[in-house]
Amino acid sequence: MDEKGEKTVSSALLAKICGRNAAQIRKDLAYFGEFGFRGVGYSVKDLLNNIKKILGSNKEWRMAVIGVGNLGSALLSYKDFLKQNYKIVAAFDIDPPKVIGRLSEKLGKPAEVLHISRVNEVAKERKIDIGLIATPPSEAQGVANLLVEAGIRGILNFAPAQITVPIGFVVKDVFFTTILDNLVYLLSTETGDSSDRK
Amino acid sequence: MDEKGEKTVSSALLAKICGRNAAQIRKDLAYFGEFGFRGVGYSVKDLLNNIKKILGSNKEWRMAVIGVGNLGSALLSYKDFLKQNYKIVAAFDIDPPKVIGRLSEKLGKPAEVLHISRVNEVAKERKIDIGLIATPPSEAQGVANLLVEAGIRGILNFAPAQITVPIGFVVKDVFFTTILDNLVYLLSTETGDSSDRK
Repeated sequence: MDEKGEKTVSSALLAKICGRNAAQIRKDLAYFGEFGFRGVGYSVKDLLNNIKKILGSNKEWRMAVIGVGNLGSALLSYKDFLKQNYKIVAAFDIDPPKVIGRLSEKLGKPAEVLHISRVNEVAKERKIDIGLIATPPSEAQGVANLLVEAGIRGILNFAPAQITVPIGFVVKDVFFTTILDNLVYLLSTETGDSSDRK
Repeated sequence: MDEKGEKTVSSALLAKICGRNAAQIRKDLAYFGEFGFRGVGYSVKDLLNNIKKILGSNKEWRMAVIGVGNLGSALLSYKDFLKQNYKIVAAFDIDPPKVIGRLSEKLGKPAEVLHISRVNEVAKERKIDIGLIATPPSEAQGVANLLVEAGIRGILNFAPAQITVPIGFVVKDVFFTTILDNLVYLLSTETGDSSDRK
């Protein structure tokens, strides 16, 4: 909306876009502060800035992809990251000559894949905040240990393996099979609701 | 554990593996039935079967990947699906000559990519339950419409675009940026908890 130059938005419109109801939108936002004006709605620009501040996405987050197979390549060319302040500044693999897709330069992505042994040094040089693990599951904990040693506090783990990190570090798992389990549970119990967003 | 021939498991061990506490594990499982025996724990085989039944994963779910770029290719070679009863039986693209990785045959994956125009016919022939949308966001709703027309009730949407489906169909979104938003929110507010699983 901000890109389109829209100035205000109602909770009803936000609700429609999100597939929720307007009262819930107002309640959720009110939890963080008074952002809206009765009869007017929300200022698009102010709401956007406030949400970014709440989410911690008002700063640039610098990321590294570890493991440049199909999934790692998909992450390196994932355009939606750029709309937020998520910037991939490095890519690592045990087989560094792997080529990143031709789009990489255009998207401001790292132009070369580095050997994983350089992660500690490069993490400091390029101020990496977050590591995206896209390795085979057998390598995930080892890579997580390297990221922790390098002081990279956030990990998005795409490898289907449970990894543990010390206190002060944060892991979010993206397990496609677990998400499918959730979908088929909904399909099995589905009684007419049209999506998980309702 | 079942693969390793282990007969029983305690809630304490399950808790450790899941990064939760034993009381929560017992409470969660008790919600669905009496699966455990005091002082003994759970029968691995029975618990596995019960969980599969609860999740709806005791049957085979037949899936199609739509969009065979980097992400679609990653999904086609995602080995973890095979551990559950998730089987990819078709792949579609608007540019069907795209080659699927050399692993595909070994993994029992479809050996050829079909043109998206064939989705209706093939969905019926191959009894497809679930579509994994891995197209650019601009194509996601159009593909979802085709899947709905073909009677494919479940959609896992990897394209960063909101899609809507009629009542009776289920969509789960896998938006990497949203998951990152969640991670950086935890990083911004982190006070010593070591992961989202605790």
